[in-house]
Amino acid sequence: MFRYAFRIEYDGSCFHGWQKQKNLETIQGTLNRCINILDPISDGVIGAGRTDAGVHATGQVAHVDLKAEWDPSVLRNALNYHLRNNKISIIEAVNVPTIFHSRFSAIKRYYVYKFFCRAAPLALEQNRYWHLKRSLNIQKMKAGASHLIGHHDFTTFRSALCQSKSPVKSIGSIAISELAYATGSIIEIHIAAKSFLHNQVRSIAGTLEKVGSGAWSPNRVAKALEAKDRSACGPVAPAGGLYLVQVDYEKEIFQTTEIPIH
Amino acid sequence: MFRYAFRIEYDGSCFHGWQKQKNLETIQGTLNRCINILDPISDGVIGAGRTDAGVHATGQVAHVDLKAEWDPSVLRNALNYHLRNNKISIIEAVNVPTIFHSRFSAIKRYYVYKFFCRAAPLALEQNRYWHLKRSLNIQKMKAGASHLIGHHDFTTFRSALCQSKSPVKSIGSIAISELAYATGSIIEIHIAAKSFLHNQVRSIAGTLEKVGSGAWSPNRVAKALEAKDRSACGPVAPAGGLYLVQVDYEKEIFQTTEIPIH
Repeated sequence: MFRYAFRIEYDGSCFHGWQKQKNLETIQGTLNRCINILDPISDGVIGAGRTDAGVHATGQVAHVDLKAEWDPSVLRNALNYHLRNNKISIIEAVNVPTIFHSRFSAIKRYYVYKFFCRAAPLALEQNRYWHLKRSLNIQKMKAGASHLIGHHDFTTFRSALCQSKSPVKSIGSIAISELAYATGSIIEIHIAAKSFLHNQVRSIAGTLEKVGSGAWSPNRVAKALEAKDRSACGPVAPAGGLYLVQVDYEKEIFQTTEIPIH
Repeated sequence: MFRYAFRIEYDGSCFHGWQKQKNLETIQGTLNRCINILDPISDGVIGAGRTDAGVHATGQVAHVDLKAEWDPSVLRNALNYHLRNNKISIIEAVNVPTIFHSRFSAIKRYYVYKFFCRAAPLALEQNRYWHLKRSLNIQKMKAGASHLIGHHDFTTFRSALCQSKSPVKSIGSIAISELAYATGSIIEIHIAAKSFLHNQVRSIAGTLEKVGSGAWSPNRVAKALEAKDRSACGPVAPAGGLYLVQVDYEKEIFQTTEIPIH
């Protein structure tokens, strides 16, 4: 067996999430169908992050075991050929040792949550942003976010469906940026951690939207965290604004570490 | 009658171009259907640029005459409500004098043509760029483009279907920029002129692609122009890479002059 890792981009709005499901189009299921054209006995891919329905990726990582040895770029091109009618693209394929595991070897995951604030609806960017008709105060959002950085019990920011053994996670950084236009602005929350709970980033984004719009004080984020109570959380932000942009490993496996979509 | 002008964004991949056609979904036809819900006797919109099928806009301008007087932002919101299932958005509506004409009053039109150069197919940005598997040399493209700036007979860069009386046009500027990533690069051609011939920007983009890829010398652009012969042109670039981003008038009519999509 030979193990390969892929850096993968996809438009999440076309799929019922990453994880394979019977009778539903998923990213893992679509990839596995294409992989089994090349290698009928392969068990398919295991991904670093199980993104939900509607969530996009520019830097998902997955690994697969194949019976034959492949030149990695030939493998990438062959898979992209079979994926051509799906909005999934293998950006890069590399040969990795069999001790490499896309999920368990990951040391850091990077997500970006994007808001588009303007009065008019989005024609070109539907399902790519959370569209808000009003602007957000990013100074307040930064103040709110500061309470979440570090090692905490994130029970408040965790889906009821979350399968993690522990609600305790460490968030390394939350950076919030704004790009202003005459018609409105694009606001991005960049968040990185070793691992996340189910719906954690979208729960944080939904909470910070409350802060940015002025409905919540920044301090209420600290109180929500302390409450360790799901009902203290802001609403879960829409899936279309979320992107899995990068996964880091102890040893860098890809040549490409940048985000190919601005 | 009261005249209103709109700044309009649309995803051209959903339509058979701007201009209304029987039994085909077009941007003008869709807008007129929505306008006639508000004002059954309105003749509908006239646009500054008749973009082809697949061509996008972030700053198309159109005007319409309505029987009733509207608050411009109420009009914008009402039209956007009726447009909600279409990938068309009215960014801004303004009241204009009846001497204003979106097409004939325009003094400058701005288009951007976008290339995405990388080995892997585009999953998130399908139909938004011309995807090329190899990079382009933008220094050579700039050298080629320099021959096109100014007042010329653009017969070579004109569709056989073009209805313009004269093939002589003045191109004010062509700026070419590159944003490099580890996986590849995004190249944009920014081009501005009072008016364009049919397929002129896509003919120029297709010709500059030939130069950037090394198939043509930059000097061949000068020869192609001098030939005044359609067969001397490079191939017409795909529609999905082209955006109408702004239209200028003697007196600025909109508050928003910036391009809301990066």
